[in-house]
Amino acid sequence: MLLESIQECGDIKGIDPKDYKRLASEIRRFLIKKVSKKGGHLASNLGVVELTMALHLVLDLPKDKLIFDVGHQCYTHKLLSGRREGFDTLRSYGGMSGFPNREESECDIFTTGHSSTSLSMGLGLARARDLKGERHTIVSVIGDGSMTGGMAFEALNNAAELKGNFIIVLNDNGKSIGDNVGGIPVAFEQLRTAPRYNRLKQDVKNTLDRIPNLGGGMVRGLGRAKDAVKQILLPNMYFETMGLTYLGPVDGHNVEAMIRTFRAAKRLNRAVIVHVVTRKGRGYGPAEKDPERFHGIGPFDPKSGLSLSASSKSYTDYISEGLLALGEKDPTVTAITAAMASGTGLLEFSHQFPERYFDVGIAEEHAVSFAAGLAKGGFKPYVCIYSTFLQRAYDQIIHDIALQQANVTLLVDRAGLVGQDGVTHQGMMDSGFLQTVPGLCLMAPRDGKELLNMLEYSLSYEGPLAIRYPRGKAPESLTDSHEPLEYGKGEILFKGRDILLFAAGSMVETGLELQKRFMDDGLSVTLVNVRFIKPFDEDLLRRLAPDHALLVVLEENNQSGGLGQHVADFISRESLPCRLLNTAPPDEFYPHGETAILKKELGLDTEGLYSRILKAWKQGDS
Amino acid sequence: MLLESIQECGDIKGIDPKDYKRLASEIRRFLIKKVSKKGGHLASNLGVVELTMALHLVLDLPKDKLIFDVGHQCYTHKLLSGRREGFDTLRSYGGMSGFPNREESECDIFTTGHSSTSLSMGLGLARARDLKGERHTIVSVIGDGSMTGGMAFEALNNAAELKGNFIIVLNDNGKSIGDNVGGIPVAFEQLRTAPRYNRLKQDVKNTLDRIPNLGGGMVRGLGRAKDAVKQILLPNMYFETMGLTYLGPVDGHNVEAMIRTFRAAKRLNRAVIVHVVTRKGRGYGPAEKDPERFHGIGPFDPKSGLSLSASSKSYTDYISEGLLALGEKDPTVTAITAAMASGTGLLEFSHQFPERYFDVGIAEEHAVSFAAGLAKGGFKPYVCIYSTFLQRAYDQIIHDIALQQANVTLLVDRAGLVGQDGVTHQGMMDSGFLQTVPGLCLMAPRDGKELLNMLEYSLSYEGPLAIRYPRGKAPESLTDSHEPLEYGKGEILFKGRDILLFAAGSMVETGLELQKRFMDDGLSVTLVNVRFIKPFDEDLLRRLAPDHALLVVLEENNQSGGLGQHVADFISRESLPCRLLNTAPPDEFYPHGETAILKKELGLDTEGLYSRILKAWKQGDS
Repeated sequence: MLLESIQECGDIKGIDPKDYKRLASEIRRFLIKKVSKKGGHLASNLGVVELTMALHLVLDLPKDKLIFDVGHQCYTHKLLSGRREGFDTLRSYGGMSGFPNREESECDIFTTGHSSTSLSMGLGLARARDLKGERHTIVSVIGDGSMTGGMAFEALNNAAELKGNFIIVLNDNGKSIGDNVGGIPVAFEQLRTAPRYNRLKQDVKNTLDRIPNLGGGMVRGLGRAKDAVKQILLPNMYFETMGLTYLGPVDGHNVEAMIRTFRAAKRLNRAVIVHVVTRKGRGYGPAEKDPERFHGIGPFDPKSGLSLSASSKSYTDYISEGLLALGEKDPTVTAITAAMASGTGLLEFSHQFPERYFDVGIAEEHAVSFAAGLAKGGFKPYVCIYSTFLQRAYDQIIHDIALQQANVTLLVDRAGLVGQDGVTHQGMMDSGFLQTVPGLCLMAPRDGKELLNMLEYSLSYEGPLAIRYPRGKAPESLTDSHEPLEYGKGEILFKGRDILLFAAGSMVETGLELQKRFMDDGLSVTLVNVRFIKPFDEDLLRRLAPDHALLVVLEENNQSGGLGQHVADFISRESLPCRLLNTAPPDEFYPHGETAILKKELGLDTEGLYSRILKAWKQGDS
Repeated sequence: MLLESIQECGDIKGIDPKDYKRLASEIRRFLIKKVSKKGGHLASNLGVVELTMALHLVLDLPKDKLIFDVGHQCYTHKLLSGRREGFDTLRSYGGMSGFPNREESECDIFTTGHSSTSLSMGLGLARARDLKGERHTIVSVIGDGSMTGGMAFEALNNAAELKGNFIIVLNDNGKSIGDNVGGIPVAFEQLRTAPRYNRLKQDVKNTLDRIPNLGGGMVRGLGRAKDAVKQILLPNMYFETMGLTYLGPVDGHNVEAMIRTFRAAKRLNRAVIVHVVTRKGRGYGPAEKDPERFHGIGPFDPKSGLSLSASSKSYTDYISEGLLALGEKDPTVTAITAAMASGTGLLEFSHQFPERYFDVGIAEEHAVSFAAGLAKGGFKPYVCIYSTFLQRAYDQIIHDIALQQANVTLLVDRAGLVGQDGVTHQGMMDSGFLQTVPGLCLMAPRDGKELLNMLEYSLSYEGPLAIRYPRGKAPESLTDSHEPLEYGKGEILFKGRDILLFAAGSMVETGLELQKRFMDDGLSVTLVNVRFIKPFDEDLLRRLAPDHALLVVLEENNQSGGLGQHVADFISRESLPCRLLNTAPPDEFYPHGETAILKKELGLDTEGLYSRILKAWKQGDS
C-alpha cells in the first residue's frame, strides 16, 4: 500500500508521479471503507482526492497555510498529514474530528465547520504575511456552493486590493449539499460546459496581448462576436470585473494539470482564482449517483451503498410531515431553506409545492430577510435552518423579522447537542441569542406529536415565532394525551410537592425518567413541560414555586441567556421563596462525539441530573 | 412654494414637468434648513432628491412598494409622502424618525436602518406578488456602498431566478459613508468615468442584436477590441454574469431620463438593475466637499456649514487617541472598520498607519473573520464596529474568533442607547449576545481614562476580547485615581453596608450620583465598577453580597442574557442571602429620541433608578 508510506505531512512528495493514480484509488478505497463503518462525509471527500494530493504536492505544510472552507472535505488532507489512524475513531468522542481542527494538527490552522469563511481568514493571513515580509503560500479551497454565501463575496471584493499572492481554489462540483441555486452557479455551469473554452480562451488571450489599442470602428465589429464573447469571457469576467485574476478551468481529477496551474498561480502577486472542476462522489458509484445522500451519512454497506441502520423517526421527519399538511391546508404556507432541503426535511414539500418552496443557497441572512418580504406580501413563510447556522442570521432576525413583526416562523433544527459533527455544529446557543430578540416567541416541543401541534399552532399565530427541536430520534408521544397549546402556557405533566422540574423540549423526556427515579426514592415531583421558552409561563411558576422546596430548570442549551437565567431573574424579581437549580451547562464549546456521551459529560443525562438534583435537595435539607 | 402643494403621496404627479427643477431646489433648501436645526443625515438625502422624485412620479404608492436600503436617504420620500411637518420633530422623541418607519406611513413598508437588506426584502415581496398573481411594482433603492455587503450579493444571486419584475435601483455615488473599497466599486468607477460609454454601448447593442452568430475567425478579430470590450461590457457584465438585466447608467439628477428608464424597467419580467449615478451632498457646497462629515451631522450653520455645537470628547475620541498610542507602541496593532472610519474613530490611525489599517466595506462578517486571519498571522487586530452592526457578525465572532481563540479585540462602539438614530441603531443587545460566546471576555469602561486603560490592558491580553462603550460624551475621569486592571476583577469605588450597586460601564457615573442621593437619605452604599462583565467578579460578589440587604445591578443593556441575569443566576447557584434588583430594561425595541429622555422613559436615569431602588429597599424592610 502506497498509503502506508505516508506517515506525515510531506511524505506524499516521495511518491513517484506515475503512482499518483494508484494512490488516489487507494485513498478512495480507504475512505469508503472507513466511512462505511463510522459514518461521515463521503461524497465531498471523494471529489477532492486528487485536488488535495496536488495541493500537498505543491505546498510546504504547515509553513504554507491551507484552509478548507466548511471543512467536511478534509479527509484526504487528514490522511496526507499523518492522521490515517484517526479514521478508526472518526467523529467519535475523544477521537478524530470530521472537520479541520487546530488541536489535532499544525496543518489545520483553523477549526472550521461553517460555510464561506475561508476567504476572509485566508485574506487575513495573506495580509499578515505581507506586512511581515514573509513568503509562504496561502490557499483557501472553497466550493461553488459556499461561494453563494455573502461573506465569501465580501472577501472577494476585498481580495481585489491585495498586492501579494493568495490562491483561491474554486472547487466546482456544481453542488452545495443539494443542487446549487441562483445566477452565479449558472455562470459556472456555462463555463464548465463550453467545450472549446480552453483553446478559445488561449487564442483570444494571445491575440489580445499583441494588440495594444483599438480603433473606434472595431466596436461595431464586435457585433458578430456576441455569443462568443459571452461564452468565452463572461464567466471569468465575473471574477475579472471584481479585479481578480482567474485561471482555469482545470480538471480536478488530473493531478499533474493541477500542479502546473497551482505553480503558475503561486507566481502571481495578487489574489488568484483557480477554477477546478471536480465530481462529487467521484470513484464510488452510489455516491456519484446520489451525492446528497452521501454528503453526510451514517454507517452503510460499502458494496451496495445501502444504509445499515434503519433510522427511526426524527424531529426533522415530523417537520417534513407537518409542513406538508400545512401546505395542503393553507396556500400561503411557504418554505425556505439555505441549501439544506434534505437535512431540514423539505424534500417532500419541495416536490409537492415547488412554487412555494425556496432554496436560496448557502445564504442564511438572505433566507431570513427574504422570508420577511414574503410575509409582508401576505404569505406565511417557514424558514428551516439548523440552530448553529441560524447564528449567521442573528441581525436579520432582529432587524428584518422582529422589528417588522413579520409573520415568519423559524424552524430551528439541530437545537441542542448534535453529536458527531461536533464543535462547530452544536446548537447550544439559540435559546440564548433568540431570547434577546424583542417580541420573538420561542417554543420547544417535548415529542413528535407536540411538534406537529406546534406547527399547527404556528399557522394561526401572527408574528415572529421560533420552534427549536433537537437532531435525531423523536419520541412519538410521551403521554397518551396532549392538552391544546395556549400562548405562553406550560403543561403540567405530574403534580407533586417536593421538587418542581421545569423542563424545555427534549428535556421533558428526561424529566419523566427523573420523576420515576425520585418517586422510587419517595420524593414527589411536579413536572412542567414549559412549551414556551419565551415568554415562559410566569403565572404557573408563581403558583407552583412556593409549594416546592426546589425548582430545577432543565434545558439543552448553554447558560447565557437561556431559560434558566430567565427563571433565576424572574425568581429574584418576584422574590419567590424557592431555591433554584439551573442545570444548563456552562458557556463552552463542546466537541464531537455520540450525544449520549456528551450529555453524560455535561451532566445532562438522567443519571447525572439525578445526582445533581439530589445533592441540591439534600443541601436544602441541611 | 411648490412643496406646499404636496400634501400626500401622489401629489407630485400634479406638478408640471417644467417645474421639476424648481421643486428639487425647494426640497434641497427645505432639507438643508431643517437638518441644520435638528441634525440628521444630509449628504445622502441631497444626493437622491431627483431620484426620489422620479420614483414617486413613476410609482403608485403605497400600492407599489418602495424600499430604501439602510434608509437614511428617505427624507425626500418622507416629504413626498405627506410628512413635511414631521421635519420639525425630526429624530426627536415622539417625533418623526430619520429612517423609514412602518408605523409612520403606509408608504414605508419596512422599518429599516441596517445595510444591504433591501434586495432580500424586495425579492420576497416580488415572489409573494407573483404567487398571488398581483401586478404592482417593487423597487429597492440600494447604494453602491451597501452593495459591498454580502447579503445583497446573496439576494442578487437569487434574483436571477425571478420570472417577474423587480427593479433594483443602484444609487451609485461612489461612497458608502466614507469612500468605497474593493473590486466592485472599482468596476463601477470605470463605468462612471467611461466618457463614451452610453453611445458606445448603444452602438454595440444595435450591432449585436442584428447579428445572430459568429464565425470562428471572429475570435481572433476580438483581439483589437481588448480595452473596448473591457470598457464597454465589463461593468455591466458583473450583473449579467449573474443573470440580471442591467440598464444605465442614468444621470441621477435628470428626472426625465430616470422616468424613461424606470418605465422601461417596469416592462421587463425579471430582475432589473437600473444604475443611477448621483452625487452625495448635491446642491450644497459644504456637503459636496465633505460628504462624510455631512453624512450624519448635528445642528450646523446653513450658510457656512460649520457645526454649531462644540462637541465634547466622546468615547470614540478616546478610542482614536488610544489606538494611535497602541499603534505607535506595537507594530502588530492593526485596525479594521466596516466602512465607518470616521464614526469609529479610526481616521487618525488610518493616516498614521495606512498599511495596518483596513476598511473592508460594509461587510461586518468579513471584517471579523478577516481579523481572525490577521491574528493567526501574528498581528493584534482591533475590530471597530457599532454594537447594532456587530449583531451581523455574531456567528463569525463565535466560529472564527472564539473557537479559534484568536487574539482579536472587538471595540464595540455605540453600546447602549444611541439616541436620535433610533430603533434600528440602539445597542441594547450586545451584552446579551456577546455573553453567549464561549471564552469571550467582555469589558466596559466607566470613563475615558478607563477606556484608555482597557485599551492598554488589551494589548497584553491574549485571546478574544470585547470592550463596549456608549455613544457620545465620555466623562474624562470620574475619580482621581484608577486602580490597575486585573482580569475578572471589579473595582470598589465606595464601601458601604446597606445597598450594593454593581454597575457596568456608563452606569458607574449614575451609580456615583445615586450614592450621593442615598447618602443624603442616610443610606450607605457600596459602589462597584464591574469593569469585567464576563467573567464578572464572583469572588467580590460572594464577599460583599452577604453584607448588604439589597444588591442592584446597573447596566445599559436589555435584560436577556445581560449582566443582571448572570448575577441572578449566580446568586441562586450560590444561594447568596441577598435580594437582587435587576434594573435592566425589558427586551423591547426602543425608539429614537434624546438619550436623556429615553433613559428617563426606561427608568435608567438617576431619578428613576433612585425611586426604583428606594422602593425595593423599603419592600425589604417590610
